[in-house]
Amino acid sequence: LNLHCPACDERYALDSERWRCVCGAAFELEGTPRFHPGDIVENDTSMWRYRSALGFEGGPAVTMGEGWTPLVAAEVEGQALWLKLEYLNPTGSFKDRGASVLATFFLALGMSRLVDDSSGNAGAALAAYTARAALRATLYVPANTSPAKRAQIAAYGATLVPVEGTREAVTAAAQTAVMGGDVGTRYASHVYHPLTLFGPKTIAFELWEQLGGRAPTRVVAPVGHGTLLLGCYWGFADLLAAGLIERLPRLYGIQAAAVAPLAQAFASGLADAQPVFPGDTLAEGIRVGRPVRGAEVLAAVRASGGAIVAVDNASIVAAHEMLARGGFYVEPTSAVAIAALDRVGEGGETVVVLTGNGLKQPLFWPNAPMSAAAN
Amino acid sequence: LNLHCPACDERYALDSERWRCVCGAAFELEGTPRFHPGDIVENDTSMWRYRSALGFEGGPAVTMGEGWTPLVAAEVEGQALWLKLEYLNPTGSFKDRGASVLATFFLALGMSRLVDDSSGNAGAALAAYTARAALRATLYVPANTSPAKRAQIAAYGATLVPVEGTREAVTAAAQTAVMGGDVGTRYASHVYHPLTLFGPKTIAFELWEQLGGRAPTRVVAPVGHGTLLLGCYWGFADLLAAGLIERLPRLYGIQAAAVAPLAQAFASGLADAQPVFPGDTLAEGIRVGRPVRGAEVLAAVRASGGAIVAVDNASIVAAHEMLARGGFYVEPTSAVAIAALDRVGEGGETVVVLTGNGLKQPLFWPNAPMSAAAN
Repeated sequence: LNLHCPACDERYALDSERWRCVCGAAFELEGTPRFHPGDIVENDTSMWRYRSALGFEGGPAVTMGEGWTPLVAAEVEGQALWLKLEYLNPTGSFKDRGASVLATFFLALGMSRLVDDSSGNAGAALAAYTARAALRATLYVPANTSPAKRAQIAAYGATLVPVEGTREAVTAAAQTAVMGGDVGTRYASHVYHPLTLFGPKTIAFELWEQLGGRAPTRVVAPVGHGTLLLGCYWGFADLLAAGLIERLPRLYGIQAAAVAPLAQAFASGLADAQPVFPGDTLAEGIRVGRPVRGAEVLAAVRASGGAIVAVDNASIVAAHEMLARGGFYVEPTSAVAIAALDRVGEGGETVVVLTGNGLKQPLFWPNAPMSAAAN
Repeated sequence: LNLHCPACDERYALDSERWRCVCGAAFELEGTPRFHPGDIVENDTSMWRYRSALGFEGGPAVTMGEGWTPLVAAEVEGQALWLKLEYLNPTGSFKDRGASVLATFFLALGMSRLVDDSSGNAGAALAAYTARAALRATLYVPANTSPAKRAQIAAYGATLVPVEGTREAVTAAAQTAVMGGDVGTRYASHVYHPLTLFGPKTIAFELWEQLGGRAPTRVVAPVGHGTLLLGCYWGFADLLAAGLIERLPRLYGIQAAAVAPLAQAFASGLADAQPVFPGDTLAEGIRVGRPVRGAEVLAAVRASGGAIVAVDNASIVAAHEMLARGGFYVEPTSAVAIAALDRVGEGGETVVVLTGNGLKQPLFWPNAPMSAAAN
């Protein structure tokens, strides 16, 4: 495995200190193993059943049962769907997959402190997996991140640093800290580090197995930086290369209307997203005005025949209620995928990825003013 | 399957309206199927892989992937343990198992509204599974139940009725409502209805499978009414009867010192618990002063060679922190099992059941006074 810059074609070793290319672009991975169904570890019902496809043959994984989440049939507004319950991962979001990979990698490298910036869920995931591996972590989050997520990160024993301002200010604070860190400090960015994308890649493998050896027609998921959708794309591309599926599923990325750089770029036919100032949205997990892998995400979605669209707060609230009243309690960010169903249209087998647990960001608090409980 | 009263030997049909015997005792089940390993549905990675052992051969299950939770190796204070991550069930607690069974049963009976009383987790579970089955639910909970649990129950669309006073007052309110309900109303009590215990029974089956076909030496779990431990006992008894294990694991039930009727009865050699007035404890999930199945739980624990002990608030806080700093974020109720490890002693293979998600009752809120957030 090598780090490769898709912008300037530069290459670096996988264990390089660099977290992005000198030209500023995010790395992709080169030389990833092929997917062989015979290599699946059948009695491991976590994402590590695919360890050989991730290139982690040796060494212990930093794991607590992440992945192999339920795929549940449900009917939403008369439409038959598969719901992939990623909110049942150990810390309550799909970010656990990438955090498990990163903690495993950096532990093997002998690093002692990992730094990341996050809207909350990736931070909670990295805090948990570094705790599991007895590494130290420092997490930078927006000051207005949901209190339940901040409480969770702090409970794991990570150093929690709330930062006022935009999500980009949070990233800048983390990157500055990494540069000032000691020799054992690394930027375990769930956006920049391409190994993170091995996490959501396993979602594609699982869907293929759980559907009995086929790909769905469509996959619908929330998109902030777009790592979930991009990882899925990589996974389905592996399955296609291995001759196990005949075509890619159409990938649909859903954004919040208040922060929709990728949806705007998609609609305008642009190759990359133009940064936007993030407006207010309930979907705090995808409040990303400057997506780092925008060009890659747009290319993947277009190659798949899918689309990127945006939904407003009112439809997020309605979709959140609809899901909960069917038994699925997710955070508002996850509800965007359901809010966009009428934009995606009908036809074929559709998987909606429910990314984060409703307990992380309750929309309504009974018998208490929301402001008192949520601040 | 029949309902059977262990106190007066009376029998009722399984679909009886009665939720307890005329003599006042809680029913047990008679005529449960034997466990046959060959009947396990191997490609179902939920608790419904054991559907034949539960006597649910026909009809659709009300399911969203509950059960088959991770069993993770961890070292806590130098002791090697298996942690059973029941907090990764769909609504964040092991109660989902019983709720899935009850919703399946009452849906097949044609009931339209289910009523239960709960400290919170069982209520959230029943609210979710009735939502999934398009049934209506009314849940009675203590007024001081954690706000995250109340928000969760309400989100599912259930009618949430907070009741001031003790846990017993909550139960009385629910039972009164059932008596005043229409013909489609049933008391889906997660304590009284013995089918609920089929839920935790599957924990025993899973442990046996996940350990490669053997029982652990010991199982340690929090005990309020004691349904988790009793269900496990039933499951291991099935495995013993089928000749699949050689002895029962020793079962350890852990209570909070402020509400410890079962620990007191165990220490005093009593056959049943004497009711106590529930004192204050962080372990809100086991704040039960009058355990309904006390005699059964005491008998099961004694038959297994285990014990019931109690731990104080300070050790609960310490155990909660210890778990979180190893990557396992649970609610304080779940931490009691870890707090009691020195009381249980060493020796043999130990499984600790982590019952509820930390997101349900955060112990500390960063950057906010705890009182504002927790009320």
